[in-house]
This record gives sequence, structure tokens and C-alpha cells, in this order.
Amino acid sequence: MKEIKTFIQPHVLGRVIQALHALPHFPGVTIIDAVGQGRGRGAGGAFRVTEEEIFFHKKKLIEVVCADDLVSPIIEAIRSSAHTGHAGDGLIFVTEITQAVRIRTGEQADSAV
Amino acid sequence: MKEIKTFIQPHVLGRVIQALHALPHFPGVTIIDAVGQGRGRGAGGAFRVTEEEIFFHKKKLIEVVCADDLVSPIIEAIRSSAHTGHAGDGLIFVTEITQAVRIRTGEQADSAV
Amino acid sequence: MKEIKTFIQPHVLGRVIQALHALPHFPGVTIIDAVGQGRGRGAGGAFRVTEEEIFFHKKKLIEVVCADDLVSPIIEAIRSSAHTGHAGDGLIFVTEITQAVRIRTGEQADSAV
Repeated sequence: MKEIKTFIQPHVLGRVIQALHALPHFPGVTIIDAVGQGRGRGAGGAFRVTEEEIFFHKKKLIEVVCADDLVSPIIEAIRSSAHTGHAGDGLIFVTEITQAVRIRTGEQADSAV
Repeated sequence: MKEIKTFIQPHVLGRVIQALHALPHFPGVTIIDAVGQGRGRGAGGAFRVTEEEIFFHKKKLIEVVCADDLVSPIIEAIRSSAHTGHAGDGLIFVTEITQAVRIRTGEQADSAV
Repeated sequence: MKEIKTFIQPHVLGRVIQALHALPHFPGVTIIDAVGQGRGRGAGGAFRVTEEEIFFHKKKLIEVVCADDLVSPIIEAIRSSAHTGHAGDGLIFVTEITQAVRIRTGEQADSAV
């Protein structure tokens, strides 16, 4: 089982959710408000720490947990629907889930998600 | 060391925190506001992407980091206190933590959490 | 690749971001609002579940994904800049990232972050 986390621009949220719904098996999603800064805003940049808020970009963090064989189609659905070609399109990360429990039924592992 | 993440209904938050406090060793918790949709709302469903907000359910995401031998009692405390038997009760996931540092003391690994 | 998650006090956020910017390679950060309770507020404590909100402390959750060889300097930058010596300074956790994709370019793994 894997967790897929993706940080996307807020304005593509609807498209990404729609793309996930178009999959044969919609996996369930969690959406969290976040702010962020991309890589490369280092020493040479115009960053001023006392005004950092205005340099933070609003993001949506989407989390999906799924069986291993669904990782590739879900990543592709997110990537193609969240892609604008502009800086700030965001990232997709995958981590291993070692245990899963569905609270209502007690189902475990792949049948829980 | 493990991270236990659980997505629960907001109205059971008090019960879940109380159940964690009743454990011999309260592990410390982080609580984040989220929204979500369960699995199975696929092609046949009434989902409309332009109105997706009203189909998102409010959730609380609780994160607990603990030593390996505390995973089972913590999962059981969460599961039994968050259980209502209705759809939307949520899920519990476990991931491996490879390193932990307590900022105040510099303590590492199990003694950090 | 690793994900570094840290729960810090809100008032040190500026210092932590500044410390990350001072690194040779600023890794990009995501910042999420959270609340939390530290360990040890167990059976003997004054916790009252009906009033739990006032016992929750505001936190900032910062997430950074980076190549393995950047984990140590990033942890040190966070630890030293977030340290006040008081209870509630927070924690730093590391998890393994098994896959990463940059949405704009399709870059994978270390070159994505």
C-alpha cells in the first residue's frame, strides 16, 4: 500500500478531483490547505524574512492511499490534470504505508482503502 | 518508530483525544483540519466537479508518532473511540519513521517521542 | 529521498524559513497550520476533554522533501533555528520517499526535488 501526496495549485483542484473520479476505482482523497515556496529561492533571491507571508504561495495538499498497482494510474491522473507548464505546478510524492485500518469495519490492508 | 495518521469525523475528536489520554503513555498529537471524500464516488455517482465543495466532508487529521510497541494500543484506542458504524468513520494508516529529533533537547529516536 | 516533517512553534517560523534559505540549496517547503499537545499529559494531568481546545497549542507543520545527503544539514538548520529551550519546541521526523514526480517537467526522483 502506498500514500500519494501531491502539492498542487488551488485552481486545478477541481480538475484533479475530476481526473481521480474518472478512474475505474476512485480511491478517496483528503485535501488540506497549505502554503509553500518552491526550490531555488536561495541566497541570491529577493526573499525577505520579515515579509515572508507575501512570498508564500497557496497550495492544496492532496493525500490518497491506495494499493500498489493503482499508484501509476493515480500519479498519471494527477500529473496530467494538474499540469499547466508554469512554475509552481507542484510535486507528487509516494511513501510506503505499512498498515491500514478502516474504522467502521475494521478491514485491514488493501481492503481498507 | 512509526507515524500513525488517522482521518476522523470532527465530532469524535474529543472522544479520540480522551482515549489517547487514557493510555499509560500519552504520545502527543497533532491535529490538522482537512476535507475529504471516501472511496467509491466514481463514474456512477452524483458528483459534480463545479460544485465539489459541497461534496467534501470535513475531517480532522490526527498524527501521532510513537515507538513500535505502542502502535497496536494506539490504533485500538483510536478505532474504538472514533467508531460510529456510519460511512465516513475514516481510516488509520501507519508509516515508518526513520529518524526523530526533539528540538528542545536534541534527543533522538524513541526517546524523542 | 526523504521527507522531513517538523512541528514548530508559530513564532519561530520566520527564523526556520530564513535558516533554510541560508542553505546552499533551498529545498522548497510546505507549511500547514496545526494544533497539538505534547507527550506526558496523561492520567495525572489537568486535561479536561470538554475544554480541550484551550489546551491545544498552535503549531506550524513544515514539510521538506530532499535528497538523502541533504537530510543532516536541513535537520540541523531547523533544530538550531527552532530551538528556544522551552517545552513545546517541537519535533523533527524523517520518512522515506519512494517516488517523486515534478508535475511541470515530469522529472523524477532526486532531480524532481
